[in-house]
Amino acid sequence: MTGSAHPIRKRGRPRKDPAEAAATRRSLCRAGVAILTEKGFSAVGLEEILGAASMPKGSFYHHFGSKDEFGLALIDEYDAYFQRRFDRWFDDPDRPPMARIAGFIADARAGMARHDFRRGCLLGNLGQETGVLKAPFRARIAAVFAAWEARMARCLEAARAAGEIPAETDCRALAAFFWTGWEGAVLRAKLSRSAAPLDIFAAGFLRLARAGG
Amino acid sequence: MTGSAHPIRKRGRPRKDPAEAAATRRSLCRAGVAILTEKGFSAVGLEEILGAASMPKGSFYHHFGSKDEFGLALIDEYDAYFQRRFDRWFDDPDRPPMARIAGFIADARAGMARHDFRRGCLLGNLGQETGVLKAPFRARIAAVFAAWEARMARCLEAARAAGEIPAETDCRALAAFFWTGWEGAVLRAKLSRSAAPLDIFAAGFLRLARAGG
Repeated sequence: MTGSAHPIRKRGRPRKDPAEAAATRRSLCRAGVAILTEKGFSAVGLEEILGAASMPKGSFYHHFGSKDEFGLALIDEYDAYFQRRFDRWFDDPDRPPMARIAGFIADARAGMARHDFRRGCLLGNLGQETGVLKAPFRARIAAVFAAWEARMARCLEAARAAGEIPAETDCRALAAFFWTGWEGAVLRAKLSRSAAPLDIFAAGFLRLARAGG
Repeated sequence: MTGSAHPIRKRGRPRKDPAEAAATRRSLCRAGVAILTEKGFSAVGLEEILGAASMPKGSFYHHFGSKDEFGLALIDEYDAYFQRRFDRWFDDPDRPPMARIAGFIADARAGMARHDFRRGCLLGNLGQETGVLKAPFRARIAAVFAAWEARMARCLEAARAAGEIPAETDCRALAAFFWTGWEGAVLRAKLSRSAAPLDIFAAGFLRLARAGG
């Protein structure tokens, strides 16, 4: 019979349209980043993430083969999110290079304040857990940190070229110093639920940069 | 009957002598610090700690009311261990104050190397987990960090008095900078299984100190 109010449905799981599938994936990743930056990976069960995203288990396994696969995908998402922040701050032609870095730091601080300093850095949280995480996590987190260091080093090189920091500055080493200490500052900010550790580290870093790293 | 090869034993759990009880407690704490600095608190079950210390569950509950109580006791033990290291390094009359700090850093580096950079800082590991740990942990960890900062600040004040660092140095702020960034360095050293992050942070810190913090 044609013109039925109830169109014939195929048996089995309905095939999702790509836009809906992408939205589901995004929603799972958003919930995952929110929960894991607060609580880490090991302490959080899949149920909590599914609950926060209001998703059934089937939707999760449609996108991710396992919790580990999900965790690795979150690192990629988190990296992509930071790359967008780097593009916005480090490539800003309207500010001198050191002001771009200061702007990025202030933006990261505002991001932590927005969540009452309860959420830390996904890389830091997972990095702290490498003693229990599977090997691919360690390699992936290390690769992302290396990319972030290279990205900040380019902005420091622009600062050096502009004469904002001494000509002898080793920009790659200074960027490595930043991402090493900053992770501690984020950890301590989460612990103290305050911006003070971020401000302490940022101030020291900027003074060190002006002194040539 | 007297003179039996099997002396009469009282019913119930045998009463431990104090020295044996203290040894049991020490052994549990040692196993706890070893495992928790590698794997964190949430990911580790009591069974793993008991297994590493070769202890039955009863021995554990003889000393600690719960896993949380054990975790808090480990923070105290860890603090006491660091206070001994501080006494040894920061009060050494045979070295100038900045060399004492450099010595402490080198000793901490050697400590991590001894365990192939698999064990981090107990405070950093637990601090990263404050999103899932009970409230007393956060307060206790913060208090220990404050004490460590005050302790290093005293050594920096000696360096300032000796003219090793500029007269205008804010020693408390510089010590806070150290313990903020150092936690990131330890985290990254664990992640990369190498001393490089410790060396990067230590070098930057010492340069910053010489520049007046």
